Amino acid sequence: MKKTLSITVYNESGVLTRVSTVFSSRGFNIESIAVGLTGNIGISKIIIVLPGDQQTIEQITKQLKKLIQVIEVKDITTRPCVERELMLIKVKSSISTRSLILEIVEIFRSKVVDISEYSMTIEVTGDPGKILTIQELFKPFSILEVVRTGKISIERELGINTEFLKNS
Amino acid sequence: MKKTLSITVYNESGVLTRVSTVFSSRGFNIESIAVGLTGNIGISKIIIVLPGDQQTIEQITKQLKKLIQVIEVKDITTRPCVERELMLIKVKSSISTRSLILEIVEIFRSKVVDISEYSMTIEVTGDPGKILTIQELFKPFSILEVVRTGKISIERELGINTEFLKNS
Repeated sequence: MKKTLSITVYNESGVLTRVSTVFSSRGFNIESIAVGLTGNIGISKIIIVLPGDQQTIEQITKQLKKLIQVIEVKDITTRPCVERELMLIKVKSSISTRSLILEIVEIFRSKVVDISEYSMTIEVTGDPGKILTIQELFKPFSILEVVRTGKISIERELGINTEFLKNS
Repeated sequence: MKKTLSITVYNESGVLTRVSTVFSSRGFNIESIAVGLTGNIGISKIIIVLPGDQQTIEQITKQLKKLIQVIEVKDITTRPCVERELMLIKVKSSISTRSLILEIVEIFRSKVVDISEYSMTIEVTGDPGKILTIQELFKPFSILEVVRTGKISIERELGINTEFLKNS
């Protein structure tokens, strides 16, 4: 099962090395990681997605909390969250395929951010499922380059969990 | 001066630790890092923003290229790029301030993704300058939480550099 950890840290030299060592020393491969500034100067938030069971996550959390640069560790896997990821994707295009590409862009409410005679670059924001779907749809046109940020999450204020609604 | 490095790697356990050690062992603090999957299975792209001069970047690039998990290192600082970052920001709101917040959301073509009686969560995509501006504008309402992804970049196909146009 995939787990999502939200780690709040002091943004000091070496903090990322220390955090990632906790995972790599146990042989865990992180699926995605997003590190960004927060509203408070000197404090960053790291969102990590990794495969693992409850026990593993508890062990890792304990290890992370021992690091002096770590302020808080939260397992937000089952919390109701808004999850978003950003992708820039460069697709081969010609005069004849341009309108087909624009149709997909339109449907997914994404945005063309660069264009040339033989390519288009599209900006897509969405949950990881949407990102994968649009990537799949662009495959037939030939994908030239993809850059993705990794998922970030923020808790829903009213605590309504749409994941649970799906199963009911 | 801020530099942007684009590092293509094999997505193996420990690759992030190895890459971040190259920076931390020299005392460099990374300003932002974004790690995400690419279109090719098993291959990830890391975009790092850090302060440093040309000489430092050349040294770091040399060290990174020595790692067997590293496929390619590019200094894309002066290349013409589309630069984007994603932010989720939770702002305090009440019935009286809601419309003021919505005005800012509208102007920046951002999106409300969650709402409660006393808060709104907004999704913003843009270059780092836009992200900072909107964060500044929300400050008077009291910011409850901010999560950012770190910047990702993709080269403009026609090589037109708007940064240079600004200086001419």
